[in-house]
Amino acid sequence: MSEIKKIVLIGAGNLATHLAIALKHAGKEIMQIYSRSIDSAKILANLVQTDYCTDLSKITDKADLYIIAVKDDVLTEIVRALVIKNKLIVHTSGSVTMNVLGQCSTNFGVFYPLLTFSKDHDLNFSKIPLCIEANTNYNLELLKHLALSLTDKVFFINSEQRKILHLAAVFASNFPNFMYSIAETLVKDNNMDFDLLKPLIMETAEKVQTVKPLQAQTGPATRGDHKIMEMHLDLLEKYPEYKNLYLIISNEILRKKNE
Amino acid sequence: MSEIKKIVLIGAGNLATHLAIALKHAGKEIMQIYSRSIDSAKILANLVQTDYCTDLSKITDKADLYIIAVKDDVLTEIVRALVIKNKLIVHTSGSVTMNVLGQCSTNFGVFYPLLTFSKDHDLNFSKIPLCIEANTNYNLELLKHLALSLTDKVFFINSEQRKILHLAAVFASNFPNFMYSIAETLVKDNNMDFDLLKPLIMETAEKVQTVKPLQAQTGPATRGDHKIMEMHLDLLEKYPEYKNLYLIISNEILRKKNE
Repeated sequence: MSEIKKIVLIGAGNLATHLAIALKHAGKEIMQIYSRSIDSAKILANLVQTDYCTDLSKITDKADLYIIAVKDDVLTEIVRALVIKNKLIVHTSGSVTMNVLGQCSTNFGVFYPLLTFSKDHDLNFSKIPLCIEANTNYNLELLKHLALSLTDKVFFINSEQRKILHLAAVFASNFPNFMYSIAETLVKDNNMDFDLLKPLIMETAEKVQTVKPLQAQTGPATRGDHKIMEMHLDLLEKYPEYKNLYLIISNEILRKKNE
Repeated sequence: MSEIKKIVLIGAGNLATHLAIALKHAGKEIMQIYSRSIDSAKILANLVQTDYCTDLSKITDKADLYIIAVKDDVLTEIVRALVIKNKLIVHTSGSVTMNVLGQCSTNFGVFYPLLTFSKDHDLNFSKIPLCIEANTNYNLELLKHLALSLTDKVFFINSEQRKILHLAAVFASNFPNFMYSIAETLVKDNNMDFDLLKPLIMETAEKVQTVKPLQAQTGPATRGDHKIMEMHLDLLEKYPEYKNLYLIISNEILRKKNE
């Protein structure tokens, strides 16, 4: 079986940057960077010492793999305009089906790293689950081999599952983070430091690494402690939206408990 | 100034157990354990090699500090029955005002560790914020000194603030944990492993250790990506309660973003 060695990155944003660095570090050759923005293309090409282009028609046909790492709306545009015949092409989106790439090539798949990326946040790729999917077993093996050069957390996830996973990630990450921001507002408004809550936030996340979330569930709603819940609702009088959230989430915890 | 050396623990549950071990480790003498349950009293007394009693009237009057570490409803009962004159007494509750202890002694305060406790979870007290309050500056200094022997995270928090902190902890811990449990349900129902989401959960908690939660906020609602939100709501058709939560929390994120 052949191996993926030469890679073209289509995109120069956060994910593309992290991927380019990690792939180069894993010994792969980044042949070319494409970005609509010449500045972004230049910066990333410079970072991984390669060429760049801003015109889809200038993309080389000599690579083993083409990775489209762009926002979903840009992905649709690129897919419409890009033809690379039979070369393996993947996208990195959590919510776009694999088959859209059938327009670009006869060999395609998905290479979806399940993590929130931010440029400044230092990222250890070896800890990130990589979800892969491909249109043939052969392509899947190629992608698996590549994924394993970056992390040992490689999962075969089909397009339907990936959509659910993307949704689950909202509940696992975006919504908890929003809860943190409400907690911050509450302590700040009462002259306390958010630092007070940081160990608790860490402990809560750490606990579910080994214990099932429902088993780890604590708090007044879990205990059915209506007296405390009433007190909390009174304290939230000034924050009608948070009071509403408190009520709805607590009721849902109570319901789940009584299931 | 004198120092707290001899301590009586009233209670033998999770918190009392962790406190007794940590205090003994810090060189304090645990003089006595009180619990209504003779079994619990025995186990903890045995663990820290001390005496126990199950009758409030048998509690020694020779200690420097009496720590009531029991559930809120039991606390009320104990406070009603316990008189220790002028000895320093504290409770460990997040939601009970300090002044209830005025019934028991002329010297009182609060010693509230802000963490979720579970017996099996190994606990490093030095990482736990201790919130203290006392009825006099002298008592506050005594408690501060004791708290600093357990952790360097000591905060002066009054009773009103403590109530808010307790509420904020629900948003910082209980609600995020419930969100994890929804994420788990979604992946499990679609034959995926919750392990997939664990690194994301850790990264989300780690991020707010250094970045403000609202700055760390990502996801479709933050981006105002209505197309993805619509798709997610469709995927949640089978889970009307989670769909409702998704909608309400997303709307709140959108509202906050536009503030």
